[in-house]
Amino acid sequence: MTFELTILGSSSAVPTSKRNLTAHVLNVHERFFLIDCGEGTQIEIRKNKIRFGKIDHIFISHLHGDHIFGLFGLISTFNLLNRDKDLHIYAHSELEKFLNRHIEYFEKSLSFKIIYHHLNPKKNEVIYEDEKVTVETIPLKHRVPTCGFKFAEKPHLYNLKKNVVQTYQIPISKIQSIREGEDLMNDQGEVIPNHKLTLPPYKSRSYAYCTDTAYTEKIIPIIQEVDLLFHEATFAKNLKEQAKQTMHSTSQQAAKIAKMAEVKRLILGHFSARYKDVSPIINEAKEIFPNTYAAEDGEKYSIELQRTERS
Amino acid sequence: MTFELTILGSSSAVPTSKRNLTAHVLNVHERFFLIDCGEGTQIEIRKNKIRFGKIDHIFISHLHGDHIFGLFGLISTFNLLNRDKDLHIYAHSELEKFLNRHIEYFEKSLSFKIIYHHLNPKKNEVIYEDEKVTVETIPLKHRVPTCGFKFAEKPHLYNLKKNVVQTYQIPISKIQSIREGEDLMNDQGEVIPNHKLTLPPYKSRSYAYCTDTAYTEKIIPIIQEVDLLFHEATFAKNLKEQAKQTMHSTSQQAAKIAKMAEVKRLILGHFSARYKDVSPIINEAKEIFPNTYAAEDGEKYSIELQRTERS
Repeated sequence: MTFELTILGSSSAVPTSKRNLTAHVLNVHERFFLIDCGEGTQIEIRKNKIRFGKIDHIFISHLHGDHIFGLFGLISTFNLLNRDKDLHIYAHSELEKFLNRHIEYFEKSLSFKIIYHHLNPKKNEVIYEDEKVTVETIPLKHRVPTCGFKFAEKPHLYNLKKNVVQTYQIPISKIQSIREGEDLMNDQGEVIPNHKLTLPPYKSRSYAYCTDTAYTEKIIPIIQEVDLLFHEATFAKNLKEQAKQTMHSTSQQAAKIAKMAEVKRLILGHFSARYKDVSPIINEAKEIFPNTYAAEDGEKYSIELQRTERS
Repeated sequence: MTFELTILGSSSAVPTSKRNLTAHVLNVHERFFLIDCGEGTQIEIRKNKIRFGKIDHIFISHLHGDHIFGLFGLISTFNLLNRDKDLHIYAHSELEKFLNRHIEYFEKSLSFKIIYHHLNPKKNEVIYEDEKVTVETIPLKHRVPTCGFKFAEKPHLYNLKKNVVQTYQIPISKIQSIREGEDLMNDQGEVIPNHKLTLPPYKSRSYAYCTDTAYTEKIIPIIQEVDLLFHEATFAKNLKEQAKQTMHSTSQQAAKIAKMAEVKRLILGHFSARYKDVSPIINEAKEIFPNTYAAEDGEKYSIELQRTERS
């Protein structure tokens, strides 16, 4: 039951010799969600040995080139590989118009269907849901309509202890209710309390992706207590004015958000290409939120399973 | 007086973990000509430490995605860097229409001017010329209008031998004519033959870029005796039928062209992503044209200056 983020690119606006443009892949139970798709994303997907066929859902935060110019090549590659599964793209409605024109010209026809899900970046709403995970939008504050995404596992069930099925002769029909926390009444009318049968469920894990954005406290209720927060830190703290003008964040603003939202871990990225060494940026942020890391291309952040405490 | 090719990408259609999409940079006397611009080209330009500001001319062979999807990001980066010099793009006229729509949407305005030079891929003609170099088109045979490019230095002048200016008291006004091969008549009416004054000129160096193309002998007169020929070899010889259908070449077809054109050195590239190891392809070609090499991303091919023989 994997919950693992792979950073494919961590530079803003222009790539550097060490940092590609923005793209993340989140593996939740072998669903590979691609988040943004800057130029070169398909190359990084290959380098990180992620199978193209595993990617069925692409989430696009906003329509700036450094977050989407990789879509053209990726779609072209899907087509050359004769993909037949539907591809879901979650983005502002303008992208559909633009991509359609592009595909018409360069691809003529596609071997697969693209299903567009138009986002309303002003609303916090669930845009994807299956039996394991939900994805919701996080309204952000940028020069064009932009939203982040929060990925959260649905609540886990209780886990049966070893051998309890045999010991207590539990019929299959009752397993689901026990895993949901109910006690067992056996054939003799005895009640076996749930805690004798189960281990408490694993905690639901969560990841929030917030870029590009100016400092905005409005996102705090949505990202409250997530296990992993990616927040942009285009600038160091001394360029606060520039951050405001371009509607980006400084490292310390990102750390402040992480602190107020009581997240477990903060990853900073979307660094301006002016920073050859980002450690001063990270250190600034650590002053406010110690559990801060720099996004590095090709790095993986895994969130391990942890049991809740029985209430 | 550099004449050096840098290969930025050598894969066809889709990138692999080792090979990027097609792009070459030819440095002729510090003019950096960019030839094709597949996705990721700007990243490879950086990695190869080529300065963006040195690139003023981009030559596009044809409008397939794997040869042009890097233009979007490159233009965006030029804009972010506040480029002010004109950028010349030599391509089929359709590219102008397409790029204009793209730029209008994503860039709004550009800090520099793009000057489009519409190519007629059916004609062999000079499309660029300055005091040092000419570039001409090479009509190719592909599924869409396509042309290659031949870059050739203009004839070099004779070089004055050491100290001859002092020894023969040559007036400045006569240096140009001597460098063009004329004898000197001195104030006493004596004729000093040119060979006493000069070394014979360097040979003009040349590079021909031929991709994408099916086997076509029509290119031979144009690329005759070039120092360096890049010819696509998408397939090994056993996939000759597939090469024909897709209008690409096999390694042996490329070698045959190199042999008939009596070129000095052949580089094969634009390899199908199916080939993890291209050495069998190169070996096949060497059977026909021994001086054959595989294009490798980041590799440089320099052509050294060589003197002609005095006739």
